Amino acid sequence: MDAAHTDRIHQSFNAQAMMTTLGAAITSVAEGAVEITAPILPKATQQQGFGHAGLTFSIGDSAAGYAALTLLPLDREVVTAEIKINLLSPALGDHLRARGRVIKPGRRLVVVSSEVHALKDGEETLIAILQGTMVPVPL
Amino acid sequence: MDAAHTDRIHQSFNAQAMMTTLGAAITSVAEGAVEITAPILPKATQQQGFGHAGLTFSIGDSAAGYAALTLLPLDREVVTAEIKINLLSPALGDHLRARGRVIKPGRRLVVVSSEVHALKDGEETLIAILQGTMVPVPL
Amino acid sequence: MDAAHTDRIHQSFNAQAMMTTLGAAITSVAEGAVEITAPILPKATQQQGFGHAGLTFSIGDSAAGYAALTLLPLDREVVTAEIKINLLSPALGDHLRARGRVIKPGRRLVVVSSEVHALKDGEETLIAILQGTMVPVPL
Amino acid sequence: MDAAHTDRIHQSFNAQAMMTTLGAAITSVAEGAVEITAPILPKATQQQGFGHAGLTFSIGDSAAGYAALTLLPLDREVVTAEIKINLLSPALGDHLRARGRVIKPGRRLVVVSSEVHALKDGEETLIAILQGTMVPVPL
Repeated sequence: MDAAHTDRIHQSFNAQAMMTTLGAAITSVAEGAVEITAPILPKATQQQGFGHAGLTFSIGDSAAGYAALTLLPLDREVVTAEIKINLLSPALGDHLRARGRVIKPGRRLVVVSSEVHALKDGEETLIAILQGTMVPVPL
Repeated sequence: MDAAHTDRIHQSFNAQAMMTTLGAAITSVAEGAVEITAPILPKATQQQGFGHAGLTFSIGDSAAGYAALTLLPLDREVVTAEIKINLLSPALGDHLRARGRVIKPGRRLVVVSSEVHALKDGEETLIAILQGTMVPVPL
Repeated sequence: MDAAHTDRIHQSFNAQAMMTTLGAAITSVAEGAVEITAPILPKATQQQGFGHAGLTFSIGDSAAGYAALTLLPLDREVVTAEIKINLLSPALGDHLRARGRVIKPGRRLVVVSSEVHALKDGEETLIAILQGTMVPVPL
Repeated sequence: MDAAHTDRIHQSFNAQAMMTTLGAAITSVAEGAVEITAPILPKATQQQGFGHAGLTFSIGDSAAGYAALTLLPLDREVVTAEIKINLLSPALGDHLRARGRVIKPGRRLVVVSSEVHALKDGEETLIAILQGTMVPVPL
């Protein structure tokens, strides 16, 4: 990854107020792969006190979108056309970590997937998998 | 809808800190159909200033889940097993409104769908459709 | 629907050997909506003797794709980028009927849905719903 | 894999007339992972002469379902509750090979995924990925 692309990812991410609200941060950027980590804040929980599916979705979707963006020219943004999430286990722990990656790059469509793990006392549990389609758009 | 079921929905919804964080409210409850409305708050936007996909997903998923819950015994909760979202247009406007409904009730699985509209100056634009599976679990 | 578009749909459909193998036929074409009907042939069953999910998928996907094609210029074909199916009930009966329709037209992406019913002794049962994305491509 | 489970998978597969129609065969069975291979027969093509999405779906879904069945007691069958397919490239070649695997086992729900490759002159191209949910049911 060249510095221009890495900077580009961070600039876009920092402009997402929702990511700040959720306390999320980009913790790794590589070609075709981006990792986002977020705490399970009390304000992002569901009725049983676990992390909300909206939190899991938000970082899983963003990690997949930025993974796509690492492979695109600097004058592009991406938007999610569609994405599907299977929730496997409750979002229980201190942090969630989403790892997005590109399955199939493309000029018109980028197929992506994402895995989200919950971290509790140093142990990782896979809590969600996502599979989706990103669309490159002009910046 | 009897009062006990309606109360049950509101109690569960009010216990979801994420819904409070997003400013979301239940605006209609009927048998097999629930509507949730949320403002597009500055803190819930993406990098272009539109509502974040995580916001659209959160209220679309919750509306579908509560639609399922209206048809279940009072000693049940629901969790999302899986849900897929197609994003059709940017979340641009004052508010988003999600209408969830039950497609196929069931004791083990409840198949649901949801439509999310953006409201701007009194006009509604369909911005997302969701299709998913809810699983009844003991309270 | 003008005759040129209707002919176009039928020509494309007739060129799909898989549809002939499954005994499927187009039974209605309108702007943004196409219906395909197929018998549940013994050769298209699964291990319990019901119609195979591959049969339900094939006609549900094709009905959605042709619904998209009704709205496109005559020099276009469509391919499925992605589609998700929720199977609600066994494919039990004499025939299956898939009704595809366009949710959101577009030059680059067409968002579609489809419902598949089983017909048995004149009664219709909803057995599957599909939600997907079609991509226009040059003929 | 014990012989009883392997036999069980083959018996169920052989009872699927659709698999015979498509010329499909199980080419590998292991715990939580099943591979199905099928030729791209002229009768299973779409309008451009490539393998039909219904063929790709059928073997991708079946491989995922049988992967789930390898982990279940002998008195169980599985049915697909839902599955989503992203189609990445045309099904072009001599054969298709689907590899299904279990992501998350469970008594009530089994989350699965599948990859489908096209084989042409000894080269493999990834043409589809699937992500879904299988439900164990009594035999």
